[in-house]
Amino acid sequence: MKLNIIPVKWADEGVLMLDQRLLPTEEKWLTLRTYNDVASGIKDMVVRGAPAIGVSAAYGVALAAKSFVGTNVDDLAEELEYASEVLAKTRPTAVNLFWAIDRMKRTFERGRSEGKSVSEIKQLLLDDAKAIHDEDIEAQRLIAKYGGELLENDSTVLTHCNAGALATGGVWGTALGVIRGAVDQGKAVAVIADETRPYLQGARLTAWELMEDDIPVTLITDNMSGHIMKKGGVQAVVVGSDRIAANGDVANKIGTYMVAVLAHRHGIPFYVAAPLSTVDMNCQTGDDIPIEERDRTEVTHVKDNQLAPDGVGVSNYAFDVTPNELVTAIITEKGVARAPYTESLRKQFEQTTKAPA
Amino acid sequence: MKLNIIPVKWADEGVLMLDQRLLPTEEKWLTLRTYNDVASGIKDMVVRGAPAIGVSAAYGVALAAKSFVGTNVDDLAEELEYASEVLAKTRPTAVNLFWAIDRMKRTFERGRSEGKSVSEIKQLLLDDAKAIHDEDIEAQRLIAKYGGELLENDSTVLTHCNAGALATGGVWGTALGVIRGAVDQGKAVAVIADETRPYLQGARLTAWELMEDDIPVTLITDNMSGHIMKKGGVQAVVVGSDRIAANGDVANKIGTYMVAVLAHRHGIPFYVAAPLSTVDMNCQTGDDIPIEERDRTEVTHVKDNQLAPDGVGVSNYAFDVTPNELVTAIITEKGVARAPYTESLRKQFEQTTKAPA
Repeated sequence: MKLNIIPVKWADEGVLMLDQRLLPTEEKWLTLRTYNDVASGIKDMVVRGAPAIGVSAAYGVALAAKSFVGTNVDDLAEELEYASEVLAKTRPTAVNLFWAIDRMKRTFERGRSEGKSVSEIKQLLLDDAKAIHDEDIEAQRLIAKYGGELLENDSTVLTHCNAGALATGGVWGTALGVIRGAVDQGKAVAVIADETRPYLQGARLTAWELMEDDIPVTLITDNMSGHIMKKGGVQAVVVGSDRIAANGDVANKIGTYMVAVLAHRHGIPFYVAAPLSTVDMNCQTGDDIPIEERDRTEVTHVKDNQLAPDGVGVSNYAFDVTPNELVTAIITEKGVARAPYTESLRKQFEQTTKAPA
Repeated sequence: MKLNIIPVKWADEGVLMLDQRLLPTEEKWLTLRTYNDVASGIKDMVVRGAPAIGVSAAYGVALAAKSFVGTNVDDLAEELEYASEVLAKTRPTAVNLFWAIDRMKRTFERGRSEGKSVSEIKQLLLDDAKAIHDEDIEAQRLIAKYGGELLENDSTVLTHCNAGALATGGVWGTALGVIRGAVDQGKAVAVIADETRPYLQGARLTAWELMEDDIPVTLITDNMSGHIMKKGGVQAVVVGSDRIAANGDVANKIGTYMVAVLAHRHGIPFYVAAPLSTVDMNCQTGDDIPIEERDRTEVTHVKDNQLAPDGVGVSNYAFDVTPNELVTAIITEKGVARAPYTESLRKQFEQTTKAPA
C-alpha cells in the first residue's frame, strides 16, 4: 500500500482539490481561490464524501477569512457568517459539513472573545482548519485499526460507493480504511466494489483507489451483490456514512439500505465506518435526516450519452437510511460501537474531549 | 394505449428486427437474411427477452429451411440440425430459445414422417414459426388479462429490466403485459422502472415502451428501489423471467433477486409473468439453471465512455435466481399459479394440449 491519496490540500494560493469528476481517466488538480469556489467544488462534486466535505468546508471558511481585507473583527464576523451560509447550502445530507462550519464559528468566537486582531483570528481559523484535517486523518487511522481487527483473513469484503481516502481528508478512508487496516495487519482481503449509480463512485473512485494501493478489487453493478452473496462470495460488508442518527440509523449513499437488507438475509456482518463527526446526536432517528435529491440528468445520461427517452419521469435520491437493526457495528475513531447504539454512541462522545456537534 | 410494438417480424426478404441496442434515441429496423444473421442478432442483443428470443429462433430455423437449395429431405435435416446448433449457442439462460428450436425440430420430423417434400416442409416450418409468434402474442394477452386483475387501482408498480412487448413476440409483453392489462381494465397504474445496469433495458426500453403507450413511468437507478419501498411508494412488483424451474424458482435479469428480497421485507407482492414456454420442467430447482456471464466492457463502459480504471477486475452475471419462497404468484397464459409451485405449474401444463418442453 502507498497510502498517499490526499484529495484536498491547503496551499498559499488557495485550496487544492483533486477533481474527482474526472477520475479514473484523468488526474487533474483544481486551485480554488475563494470560498465561493470551494462551495461550488462541494456542490458540483469535485470533492465528495462526508469527511472530505467537512475538511473542505473548514478550508472554505479559512479562505473567506484570508480574503477579508478590513481590520474590524465585527465586519469579519459578518463576512464569515455569509460565507458559512453559502458553504452550508451546498449539500444537505452530510452532517460533517455543518459540524465543520460550526466548529470554525466557535473558533472565531473564541478569538473574538479573547480580543484577538483580525490577522490573529485569520491565523486561528487556518490553524483550526488544518487541525480538522489532521484530526480527520488520525481518526481514519484509528478506524482502520479498530475496523481492520473485525475482518477475517482470506475474506472478500463488499463496499458500496466510495468511502475511501478520496471521501475523507485522505490516506486511509473510512470503509476503505477498515479494509486498508486489515491489509496493514497482514490479512489477505479482496474487495467487491458496487459501481454505485448514478454517479459511479464505486467504478470511478473505489476501484481506482484500491488499485493504487494494490488491493484486489472486482467491480460489479449495483444489482449483482445479492447474487454474489447468495453464492457465498461475500464475508463482510463495510460502508461509510453521511450522517448517523443518535439511535444508530445510518444515512449513506443510495443503495446502502438494499445491501444491508441482503447482508442481513445472508447472515453477513454489515459494518459502518465513520468518524464521530458524522454522528449527529441532534437527530434522534434516521427519519430526521434530510435526503438530498439531485438532478435528473445524472440518471438519464452518462456524460454525453443519453440512456433514456426524452422527457421520462425520474427520481434521483442521493441517499437512503439503513435502520440500526441491520447494522452489525459502527466503527469510529473511539472504537467499535454495537447495539443498542443510543447508549454505545453516547459513551463514545463522553470519551472525547471535544463537545458533540 | 397504442398496443402496436412488435419487435420481430417475418417478411419476404427475411426476418425484420427492431434494433433494440439503439433505442430509445434511434428506431432502426434490420433485415436478417440468413439464420446466421438471426443468431448474431440474438447473441448481440439486437433482440432480447426470453419470449422474443424464442420467436426469433423459430424464424431463424424457418429461414435456414427457406435458404436450403436441395430437394433431399435428409440433407435438409442435416442443414437444420446445424442451424439449430448455431442458434442454440447464442444465449444459455432463456429456455424459450431451446423450447422453440425443439418445437421446430418436432415439426420437421412430423413433416418427414408424413412423407412431405422439401418445399412442403419449408412451408410447414414457416407456418409453425408464425404460429409460435401468434401463440406468444395470444399468451401475453391472457397474461395481461389474468395479471391485470391482480393489480389495484391507483397503484404504483415497480418493474425490473424490460419484460415488455420488446421482450416478446409483441403487443402486450409479460410483466408490462400485466400492467397494460390493468390499464386496459380501467385501472390507474403508474410504473417505476429500474434502469437495469449494465445493459440499461429499463432506462432504454421499458421507459420507451410505456411512454409510447402513455403509461406514466418514473425511471430510477437499480439501487433506489429499497428506499422507495421503505417510503411506501411501491404497491406491487412485476417482473418477467428467462427460465422458471419446476419448483417455481425464477431466473431473471440480474438484480431481480434483490428486488424480491426487498419486496418481501416490505410486504409487497412480487409477481412473475411469463408464458408457460418459460417454465422448464426439466429443471427441478433454480440451481439447475445456467447463469450467463457477459463481457466486462458492459460494466466498464457506456458506449465510448470509460467508467472504471483500465484493467480492473469485473464480474458480469447477466441473471440471478429468485427462490420460490419470495414469489407471490406466477402469471402465465393458463392463469395465476401460487405456491406450492411444483403442483400448480404441473397443473397448468396438464391444462395445455402442447407437451411441455
